[in-house]
Amino acid sequence: MLKYQQIAKEIENYIYSNSLPQGTKLPTVENFAFDYKVSKSTIVKALESLVLKGIIYQVQGSGIFVRRRNRTGYIDFNILAGFTSSLKEFKITSKVLDFDIIKADNKIAQLLECNLNDEIYKIKRIRYINNEIMCYEESYYKKSVVPYLTKEIAKESIFEYLNSALNLNMGFSDRYFNIIKLDKHIANLLELNPNDPAMSVLEQIYLSSGIMFNFSKIIYHYKHTQFYSQSTSIK
Amino acid sequence: MLKYQQIAKEIENYIYSNSLPQGTKLPTVENFAFDYKVSKSTIVKALESLVLKGIIYQVQGSGIFVRRRNRTGYIDFNILAGFTSSLKEFKITSKVLDFDIIKADNKIAQLLECNLNDEIYKIKRIRYINNEIMCYEESYYKKSVVPYLTKEIAKESIFEYLNSALNLNMGFSDRYFNIIKLDKHIANLLELNPNDPAMSVLEQIYLSSGIMFNFSKIIYHYKHTQFYSQSTSIK
Repeated sequence: MLKYQQIAKEIENYIYSNSLPQGTKLPTVENFAFDYKVSKSTIVKALESLVLKGIIYQVQGSGIFVRRRNRTGYIDFNILAGFTSSLKEFKITSKVLDFDIIKADNKIAQLLECNLNDEIYKIKRIRYINNEIMCYEESYYKKSVVPYLTKEIAKESIFEYLNSALNLNMGFSDRYFNIIKLDKHIANLLELNPNDPAMSVLEQIYLSSGIMFNFSKIIYHYKHTQFYSQSTSIK
Repeated sequence: MLKYQQIAKEIENYIYSNSLPQGTKLPTVENFAFDYKVSKSTIVKALESLVLKGIIYQVQGSGIFVRRRNRTGYIDFNILAGFTSSLKEFKITSKVLDFDIIKADNKIAQLLECNLNDEIYKIKRIRYINNEIMCYEESYYKKSVVPYLTKEIAKESIFEYLNSALNLNMGFSDRYFNIIKLDKHIANLLELNPNDPAMSVLEQIYLSSGIMFNFSKIIYHYKHTQFYSQSTSIK
């Protein structure tokens, strides 16, 4: 991690751990440079990265301010591994419905950017938030990237396992979503009625090397989920 | 605009105007520095801002690559002024249902971060994509920030007017969204049936000064809209 990234991380942690509200004025570049014993240009870089991440905003001639990151209980669509990190205050649990190793068919090969017949973990789960049904999830992982995965691991956070045990370097993700009427099968799994509303999400996740290793189809329970997304203007 | 921002913009435009697909390798930092006749550190800054904006990704020891930005026809939740810019290839039109100047009540004052009884433009519109209903939108603008607005202007893109005519400096926005069943009134406006599914979005938009000037409640037509959101990992 470069010096400016480390400082950005520390400023970010400071804002969160103190729950600073939106609009809170932060120290000046000069003050930060003095406190961290680095050059002003290092601070400027750190702050720029925080602006682009939506953590702060800078007002010309006026200062640096905290930007509100989230509301409690909203699933954050700006960060990669959805719930577990953005819903820290809740108990997230999972029931594994299905756990298989399959060969990629045409459709999977296309969505996962792999070869036909590559070995793939296919996992179906119901995920719960404070014991209420949050979503139905159908996930596909490349076995070439995730060599070891078990039903036991899938009962907990798979992402935490990939991060901490396999030390995978997460890169970025794309989410495509739309609103649907539930069919009978999924309605049943979510304990809702056919034709009830739902959000359907296709999520593709890449390592920092740019290789996709996972995609998931997620159907969210409309009564138990809400979402959040930040944007910056196009400059 | 600083030199590195200008270069970032040029690289971004180059990627889009040539429709470079995801994974396309870009020139090295050295090559860019030579081409743009600037220092390597200026290029590094430009590239970092493009990484954070989700335009490219960098792989240590391997190079700089194009990141896919979008799929055609998806509403981009990473950028501020929703449709008109992310749906350039479509015809976006509006029908103004209601155009009023009102005094902020408690709820509006809270959502718009203004004082009770402040003057507010309240605009109800149906928005169309290629002549199909895209959404119902209820927008509130601070008159103190937007001194002049008319029903005529609201028939077109209000954001384009704010940008080009009023020269407002857009900053950032927050979107909160969830899935609902339509009530009779909105179903009617969207030419759908009561209890049909929909996405309900609350969008709050700030000037670059950090002052909120607009919020909107938007109900999207589930058959005519789909959405896209990018994320970077939490570093």
